Amino acid sequence: MNKLQTIILEPYRLLRKIRLIIEYLLSLLRAFRFFKKTKKDEYPITLSIWFKQKVLGNNSAAYWPMHPSSLVSYANKIVIGKGVVPGYNPGCYLHGVNGIFIGDYTFIAPNVGIMSGNHDLNDLRNQKITLPVKIGKYCWLGMNAVILPGVVLGDFTIVGAGAIVTHSFEEGYCVIGGNPARIIRKLEKENCKRYEMEYSYIGYIPAEKFDQFRKMKLNI
Amino acid sequence: MNKLQTIILEPYRLLRKIRLIIEYLLSLLRAFRFFKKTKKDEYPITLSIWFKQKVLGNNSAAYWPMHPSSLVSYANKIVIGKGVVPGYNPGCYLHGVNGIFIGDYTFIAPNVGIMSGNHDLNDLRNQKITLPVKIGKYCWLGMNAVILPGVVLGDFTIVGAGAIVTHSFEEGYCVIGGNPARIIRKLEKENCKRYEMEYSYIGYIPAEKFDQFRKMKLNI
Amino acid sequence: MNKLQTIILEPYRLLRKIRLIIEYLLSLLRAFRFFKKTKKDEYPITLSIWFKQKVLGNNSAAYWPMHPSSLVSYANKIVIGKGVVPGYNPGCYLHGVNGIFIGDYTFIAPNVGIMSGNHDLNDLRNQKITLPVKIGKYCWLGMNAVILPGVVLGDFTIVGAGAIVTHSFEEGYCVIGGNPARIIRKLEKENCKRYEMEYSYIGYIPAEKFDQFRKMKLNI
Repeated sequence: MNKLQTIILEPYRLLRKIRLIIEYLLSLLRAFRFFKKTKKDEYPITLSIWFKQKVLGNNSAAYWPMHPSSLVSYANKIVIGKGVVPGYNPGCYLHGVNGIFIGDYTFIAPNVGIMSGNHDLNDLRNQKITLPVKIGKYCWLGMNAVILPGVVLGDFTIVGAGAIVTHSFEEGYCVIGGNPARIIRKLEKENCKRYEMEYSYIGYIPAEKFDQFRKMKLNI
Repeated sequence: MNKLQTIILEPYRLLRKIRLIIEYLLSLLRAFRFFKKTKKDEYPITLSIWFKQKVLGNNSAAYWPMHPSSLVSYANKIVIGKGVVPGYNPGCYLHGVNGIFIGDYTFIAPNVGIMSGNHDLNDLRNQKITLPVKIGKYCWLGMNAVILPGVVLGDFTIVGAGAIVTHSFEEGYCVIGGNPARIIRKLEKENCKRYEMEYSYIGYIPAEKFDQFRKMKLNI
Repeated sequence: MNKLQTIILEPYRLLRKIRLIIEYLLSLLRAFRFFKKTKKDEYPITLSIWFKQKVLGNNSAAYWPMHPSSLVSYANKIVIGKGVVPGYNPGCYLHGVNGIFIGDYTFIAPNVGIMSGNHDLNDLRNQKITLPVKIGKYCWLGMNAVILPGVVLGDFTIVGAGAIVTHSFEEGYCVIGGNPARIIRKLEKENCKRYEMEYSYIGYIPAEKFDQFRKMKLNI
């Protein structure tokens, strides 16, 4: 396959180079430095993600990058830790109405739901007030899992694919699964590695300004 | 953050205003009056939704607004009630081949499947003919739930997140959950509020013309 | 409704005709012949799919057509058979790191996960090496099902909606369901129809060149 044919058949190769140049040029501005600073992160902010979110307006209220097929409500009631990017993967739904907290280094797979709100079952027009959802550090929420309102998960809670988490596992250090979720296996606390990593950004916010941002813009 | 910086960093704020102006101008035409008339509904029709569906052509066959990451087949065999917008939330799949009926005021969360068709298990090329799916009024289908062919759900059936509904709950007034779904809790019929609300539109169709539309365009 | 009104209200009708003309013109080039050759397949390659994938760059690494809300990683470790198009439906996630094989004529519904990789539960930064996922011929993976690393499914394994498949069903000829998945029903081997169909393309690759493509481009 010659070069011309590639450009015709797979124009994204060329367009990606153009995107990278625009990313580089924008990242010279302080406001867009996240393009450069998150490049080597597990979930980098790219021009394409930023464009769909902040220009086209999909999930524009979130202060972290999200896939256009994920959905967030009440983003100002969601507090995320280092390296946490809920809905960066497609198909996730975050309903933040009563508050969601997610600890550092927690991974979230595609199609995961984290719900802090419920309709009143006797009158579906009304939202019930519930406790917030709290997810610890070093957790991993598997594909198609759903976390229901008021649930608290301790550090190192591994939520299996498709698990429906209806009650809390505050101790952490376990693998849970099933519908409703039960403990499948305990993890040895001493084997679980609590690493630390440098992140210059939490979502779109410079890490050192996150506390200030939280006080000013988040309602939780 | 000054104004200029906001426009550069979050251009959707400006673009949203432009969209609202276009919406307003279009809504002066009778054909586009749904922009104005659904503005205060739970699931309003916005220019952006209409554009992705009716210009770009994602789920263009549906007569109600849908998210581009949801999917419908045989939309002409699906009958929805007041305030019902299947697939307005992302990740839903509606397979209407043998008919789907959804009653008034029923909520449908993201990633919900409503399937009225099955492959023949002995010859996957063929679709089996089954009874239609019938979902009552004031139901709520939780995230990642799937309703299988022939299922009938009575009014006030609350389908828990991740429930796989393999058989009918015709009585309604219950919370079901699990895989396969079972009754988790009964609801007191006298406590369940049957409210009525005004809707000027059912999907893109003026409410008063819906019966006529159904006769002319729907095949069910 | 007169013609002018249709064009204003549903411009995709006109735009679809334009797309079909562009498709036709492109398909005169040998490189784009897939537009013509897959037109009557169950999952045709359309201009719109190709554009989102190969121009806009959503899942550009896949050698088969995918929905922009599906996600693939390590596409070069995924081998598909005739008529198999994982992620053509929305919301699917294919994690190919340790290899995925999918046999001919297997159907994959929306929101299905096929995962060949796992994080190390004691140190989430690390990926574990596992056996590849092998899915047979004439299988059908239902909506919201997830196939976990190392799983082997024999021919004619029907995976029910929402099933979480944690271990292998190598014999095939069965319906499995639940979380975790168990056998629900056995299929009579002699009743299961093993049909053959002509496909001129496997994904974007001409069928007769697929072996050569696999040797040169796939890493499995």
